[in-house]
Amino acid sequence: MIPRYSHDTLVRIWSDAHRLAVWLRVEIAVTAAWEARGLVPAGTAARMRERAATIDTAHLAVRQTELEQTTQHDVIAFLQACEEQLGDDARWLHFGMTSSDVVDTAFALLLREAGGEVLAALDRVLAALRERALEHKMTPCLGRTHGQAAEPTTFGLKLLSTWAELSRGRARLVRALEEIGTGKIAGAVGNYGNVPPEVEAAALTELGLGVEPVATQVVPRDRHAVFFTTLAVIAGGIERLAVEVRHLQRSEVKEAFEPFGKGQRGSSAMPHKKNPILSENLTGLCRLLRSYAGASLEDVALWHERDISHSSVERVIAPDATTALHFALTRTERLVRGLVVDAARMAHNLASAGDIVGSGAVLLALVERGVARQEAYGWVQRCALAGGDFRAALKADGEIAARVAPADVDRLLSVENHLRHVDAMFARVLGG
Amino acid sequence: MIPRYSHDTLVRIWSDAHRLAVWLRVEIAVTAAWEARGLVPAGTAARMRERAATIDTAHLAVRQTELEQTTQHDVIAFLQACEEQLGDDARWLHFGMTSSDVVDTAFALLLREAGGEVLAALDRVLAALRERALEHKMTPCLGRTHGQAAEPTTFGLKLLSTWAELSRGRARLVRALEEIGTGKIAGAVGNYGNVPPEVEAAALTELGLGVEPVATQVVPRDRHAVFFTTLAVIAGGIERLAVEVRHLQRSEVKEAFEPFGKGQRGSSAMPHKKNPILSENLTGLCRLLRSYAGASLEDVALWHERDISHSSVERVIAPDATTALHFALTRTERLVRGLVVDAARMAHNLASAGDIVGSGAVLLALVERGVARQEAYGWVQRCALAGGDFRAALKADGEIAARVAPADVDRLLSVENHLRHVDAMFARVLGG
Amino acid sequence: MIPRYSHDTLVRIWSDAHRLAVWLRVEIAVTAAWEARGLVPAGTAARMRERAATIDTAHLAVRQTELEQTTQHDVIAFLQACEEQLGDDARWLHFGMTSSDVVDTAFALLLREAGGEVLAALDRVLAALRERALEHKMTPCLGRTHGQAAEPTTFGLKLLSTWAELSRGRARLVRALEEIGTGKIAGAVGNYGNVPPEVEAAALTELGLGVEPVATQVVPRDRHAVFFTTLAVIAGGIERLAVEVRHLQRSEVKEAFEPFGKGQRGSSAMPHKKNPILSENLTGLCRLLRSYAGASLEDVALWHERDISHSSVERVIAPDATTALHFALTRTERLVRGLVVDAARMAHNLASAGDIVGSGAVLLALVERGVARQEAYGWVQRCALAGGDFRAALKADGEIAARVAPADVDRLLSVENHLRHVDAMFARVLGG
Amino acid sequence: MIPRYSHDTLVRIWSDAHRLAVWLRVEIAVTAAWEARGLVPAGTAARMRERAATIDTAHLAVRQTELEQTTQHDVIAFLQACEEQLGDDARWLHFGMTSSDVVDTAFALLLREAGGEVLAALDRVLAALRERALEHKMTPCLGRTHGQAAEPTTFGLKLLSTWAELSRGRARLVRALEEIGTGKIAGAVGNYGNVPPEVEAAALTELGLGVEPVATQVVPRDRHAVFFTTLAVIAGGIERLAVEVRHLQRSEVKEAFEPFGKGQRGSSAMPHKKNPILSENLTGLCRLLRSYAGASLEDVALWHERDISHSSVERVIAPDATTALHFALTRTERLVRGLVVDAARMAHNLASAGDIVGSGAVLLALVERGVARQEAYGWVQRCALAGGDFRAALKADGEIAARVAPADVDRLLSVENHLRHVDAMFARVLGG
Repeated sequence: MIPRYSHDTLVRIWSDAHRLAVWLRVEIAVTAAWEARGLVPAGTAARMRERAATIDTAHLAVRQTELEQTTQHDVIAFLQACEEQLGDDARWLHFGMTSSDVVDTAFALLLREAGGEVLAALDRVLAALRERALEHKMTPCLGRTHGQAAEPTTFGLKLLSTWAELSRGRARLVRALEEIGTGKIAGAVGNYGNVPPEVEAAALTELGLGVEPVATQVVPRDRHAVFFTTLAVIAGGIERLAVEVRHLQRSEVKEAFEPFGKGQRGSSAMPHKKNPILSENLTGLCRLLRSYAGASLEDVALWHERDISHSSVERVIAPDATTALHFALTRTERLVRGLVVDAARMAHNLASAGDIVGSGAVLLALVERGVARQEAYGWVQRCALAGGDFRAALKADGEIAARVAPADVDRLLSVENHLRHVDAMFARVLGG
Repeated sequence: MIPRYSHDTLVRIWSDAHRLAVWLRVEIAVTAAWEARGLVPAGTAARMRERAATIDTAHLAVRQTELEQTTQHDVIAFLQACEEQLGDDARWLHFGMTSSDVVDTAFALLLREAGGEVLAALDRVLAALRERALEHKMTPCLGRTHGQAAEPTTFGLKLLSTWAELSRGRARLVRALEEIGTGKIAGAVGNYGNVPPEVEAAALTELGLGVEPVATQVVPRDRHAVFFTTLAVIAGGIERLAVEVRHLQRSEVKEAFEPFGKGQRGSSAMPHKKNPILSENLTGLCRLLRSYAGASLEDVALWHERDISHSSVERVIAPDATTALHFALTRTERLVRGLVVDAARMAHNLASAGDIVGSGAVLLALVERGVARQEAYGWVQRCALAGGDFRAALKADGEIAARVAPADVDRLLSVENHLRHVDAMFARVLGG
Repeated sequence: MIPRYSHDTLVRIWSDAHRLAVWLRVEIAVTAAWEARGLVPAGTAARMRERAATIDTAHLAVRQTELEQTTQHDVIAFLQACEEQLGDDARWLHFGMTSSDVVDTAFALLLREAGGEVLAALDRVLAALRERALEHKMTPCLGRTHGQAAEPTTFGLKLLSTWAELSRGRARLVRALEEIGTGKIAGAVGNYGNVPPEVEAAALTELGLGVEPVATQVVPRDRHAVFFTTLAVIAGGIERLAVEVRHLQRSEVKEAFEPFGKGQRGSSAMPHKKNPILSENLTGLCRLLRSYAGASLEDVALWHERDISHSSVERVIAPDATTALHFALTRTERLVRGLVVDAARMAHNLASAGDIVGSGAVLLALVERGVARQEAYGWVQRCALAGGDFRAALKADGEIAARVAPADVDRLLSVENHLRHVDAMFARVLGG
Repeated sequence: MIPRYSHDTLVRIWSDAHRLAVWLRVEIAVTAAWEARGLVPAGTAARMRERAATIDTAHLAVRQTELEQTTQHDVIAFLQACEEQLGDDARWLHFGMTSSDVVDTAFALLLREAGGEVLAALDRVLAALRERALEHKMTPCLGRTHGQAAEPTTFGLKLLSTWAELSRGRARLVRALEEIGTGKIAGAVGNYGNVPPEVEAAALTELGLGVEPVATQVVPRDRHAVFFTTLAVIAGGIERLAVEVRHLQRSEVKEAFEPFGKGQRGSSAMPHKKNPILSENLTGLCRLLRSYAGASLEDVALWHERDISHSSVERVIAPDATTALHFALTRTERLVRGLVVDAARMAHNLASAGDIVGSGAVLLALVERGVARQEAYGWVQRCALAGGDFRAALKADGEIAARVAPADVDRLLSVENHLRHVDAMFARVLGG
């Protein structure tokens, strides 16, 4: 991912140096497992770990790149580079393993590490949403469907809706991280040709990963497709919020505004503008997340016990998708926390929408009083489409007035009437 | 979905008639809930149910279509059509509801119904895979990576690998069906403007659905995106199997063959051909599934409390994706059950690949005997690339022979050596 | 495509009966070419054509379906069904051909036929756009960027912008239809094993198609990918217009409205609503078009001289994509022609946005008068952010007033000033 | 794009330093155009150009980044950074312009520059394909459909098929580069509010770009969608070739091999392997290209006169897509040039497929001799499915032998018979 959309944490995780450090961690875990079975001299893994702790992994990455020029094989080049560092013990590295044993197992660790950062960022967004939702639990504003004034709602409910959506996303991400958390030390075609299941079990336990029950040469890619599509669905939730903010910040609506820093400039040509550029930016980032999910879905059907076509895809989208989503979430948190809410404007817009948004309540009251639904609909619609004062029209309409008293009309059209269940909704979602 | 790729079960579920029947079921469930609260006269819902049972839903669908020409609104047209059938009671229909209350709640029921058929088809595939995997648990064949002979494996393991993948898909589908199983009777903007939460709870309980904790006018579309991406990931597993069969049926490989019916013809020009058309067809269907998932991901970010842009997408992809996947799974079951496995040819191909596929075991033995990995790799590679008899070359190679006795070479190169853990793998995956 | 989004013209083109009629047309064209070379008895093709004209193609389709149950091969079943109709002459059908010769050549004809309907619908949209653009060439309205008031523009320019985009789309569609317009009668692997190039040339000339220069068994699928992605880009243009209308119809904007039929109802719960459902529907249909394009891109890399995985994809997306786009264009024409434009409201909104939208012109005037850009930006911004009367603030600002006279401020802030080049833009785009 | 898949040329084009240099080029071109109209003092643009030639653009990029921390606006930060370099003249920069005037016009130049490199790489691939196609024009090999032996073809024809496909891709890329080659200096909403069309025309002419006939604030994004989908279709052609090579290099086929460098290692566990890793890598890269195309299609429908959601997408996919495709093409050239073709093995496989691949020719001969097609099909099929020597079976089959003499059977089954039109195909495609 380009630096503009990358935070350091994620850059570090996906650096060559860190990747090789994780590869080495996997190699040593396997060596330790062999050692426990007596096939590698006692003390080897401990010595390796000691030395590994002192290795300059950035240098290791440089050497690997150099050696790969000749071998054209990244794991072999890595092993050669390790041998330069670990001396004689190095001959026990990669014992019984195939390249994918180390690469795929390490990939699981890296995805979990990156995914963990995404999860943490998501948690920060959830905390911010919860806080602001509670703050505006009873801030009335206009609910809109089809871009049209619908019925009154509260700004807190809008935020709670995204909170609930992203909470579902969180649960899915936790599951996806579990699903992605398997390694395999099972050899060239996944059937333990040169390594017993016990070595794999011991090594993966040490690494905190599950055992892939039936690997091919690699961990099956359905797990990864689930991971990347899960990220894309979370992005959808961010995008929905971003689109909401973009609408609310429209010149004609002006109900909420992105934080606007001192010195910030909206436009090089129009000094008056306050553009919702954070939200627009988020909208675009979410498109990227969708596209990465698409590529991951094409990676599932590898040939036979594997081909390596998934690799180039993953070298790009694993960093790009996790980094972009982590960035987007971080930006979303800032957006939510800094969002300037104009409750007065919300009230104004609600009032401007007029009594007409309460038309449904009147319709209902008529039916309750025995009018056939279609007939009632027609009566209310004629008052609505008349274009004048809706409330007055209702009170003046002979057929309606005969059934609904003026005071009842007033009550039915009140904002309070629409918000009487909001408290209960918050309670059932956030508890307490 | 076109008839060619549609089974009747799914066609029925997605018919207009059935959809309206489910709409009516939802409407009556809500009426019953109101009745329980005393707002609708006692006995109304029971009378409705009685009449509903006799309604010709195909006729209802025709009437709705006619009425929609005028109203341009499908739910209003549906209600008018119902009134023609239910008489006076009909005025209690849709009481306090907005269109999406019925449409989205019914959509959840329909998706669960269609998804349930997909699940059942998936279970049939799993059963077939399990059976054939056990049948061929110890049928040796060549494992291939990068399309190259790798190490020996068994045909049963190949099938077990897909079984495991689709089992994961099954678990995800069950979860997706849970996630999709929420309804909402919460009004125009989701905050119970004209209907209390208790009515929703009672109605949804009767319908077997959960309550959407924070709806807008609609059930949030992240749930649907998860559903459709889950179908696409399952499709990936089918495609992987289909690609495997296509490879195995190649003229040069000939290890397995699709069932080929009597009277079936492979080619209009070449009478000798037996083409893996089922598997190729499955490959294409899986592309469709991926594309539908892509469309569903764009549906998440609706405007404000909803816009209706998701609707046209869903009217198409909900039937198309479930029907196509149900068809693909049904075809996959037939493919798996009817697959003609040529174990002799597998043995032949394995033998043709030669001892060279055991090169890894020899490499390992050398390291075990104290040779540095890189050095051992070089020794084995020179025997391998010599192009002659690999086994003889190993035995004749001075450096290797000094460390590995001829009998050990034979043992290391044996197929049995590679398959010694297959039993354990089956046991841990299938149990017992 | 579902009936809801299908017009009869497209349904007919993609019917089984019509497809088989086109297959038969291709077969007879090839027979005629053989006849011209003396290999088929003189008069055969003419007799076939005569009989073909009387064949009930719907019946032919039924018979083919029945026969395919046994043969499992659609072309062979078709040939058998033809033999029932054409009698003895039928033995000359398919002479030297492979199935794909007829299927792919006919597919080109069908895509051109369907694409031609799409083109015609697009032309109707362009005509409507042109007309309404000219009608509103000088109807001033607010230009908006980032959803914020920007500078004045005209409603005609908005429509002209879509006209220009869809005109580009038209040119691309014409090219794509040329690209898709090749057939192949070149045999099983495309090298004229059993048919000479001259027969292909004669047959394709009669059919109005070009010769595929290097076919495999099929016409290469890059041509189709271009076709479907071209449809998706056209859909993008429709979607942009649809999103524009959805914004303009917002309750807070109210500058334009979709045609709203007599008897039409906006909402089952809220009788007052006029929802932009046509535009929202178009937005969703465009997502479908994007998804079909994605599937078509996966069809390009077939195996060797072909596998048939593309077929299931195309059986679905060829009708679906062309039918949905044809429907969307037809709906777009109706939308454009019926769009209710509220010029007074546009003027009102423009006035409400205030003089501030002319801030850029003032900035420029200051620079023109020798002020450094950054300094000028600061001066104008302080007037803009003051929140009061921008025009007065500019006139009152010491530094600005010293350089721009009050009359000049008035001129710079006028709407006319912003629209002085609109005439020229129309002239250069529409000519005249 | 990650360094692994990036060549320096593309990295340079998409560097911040180069981008700003192009921005400055655009700004100066506009200044020159103003100067020609007398609104900017004579000599200003020349002085700017002189100074610009000496600016350290890497430093400029660093300063821009620093300044953007405060302004949160990249163009304003750029202008401030330029002022530091250009002194007093700088006040004429950006005169009458909006940010998108410079950004979008520069983006067109950058896309054309990057696209030009892609085109050059494509030309190198075409040259390599042409050369190798001619080299193997008459190298017989087996044509395969459905992965089954079909009829004989030549290896040259396979390459010619990709040559033809990529030649079409080349023509489309040239057109896409024309389409993407428009700039706009038309102000905040595209109607020349603060700049006359003549200034735009002069500036764009100097820059070698066309004028966008109806811009909004930005160049319409359908142009970009066409560009990125065009890249994806070209990728499809590469993928088809890559899949072909992967098949031909299979252990069971062994007809062609990727170049395998000295010292290169195929597998860390299996020293004997020669894996088609270049082709597999290309397969994956093409998935990425498809995914980028998908994101670009979502960028078309911007809000009103623009929102900036496309920007984050393009900042990522413009470099990523062009760099990855340039890399893929460069790798493809290497693959094609270095491909090791085993003509003897091809001949062997062709012979192994046996006479049966000539079954179509025999079928045809029977029909030519008056047998009804279905009957002839049956006769040939019974010889084919008998499983023995097909040629002998044909000669021994009473019904066949009565019509086709043994010598004719021999001729019909000969490879030469199938290749008799290959010369003509090459001539019509490559000329000469």
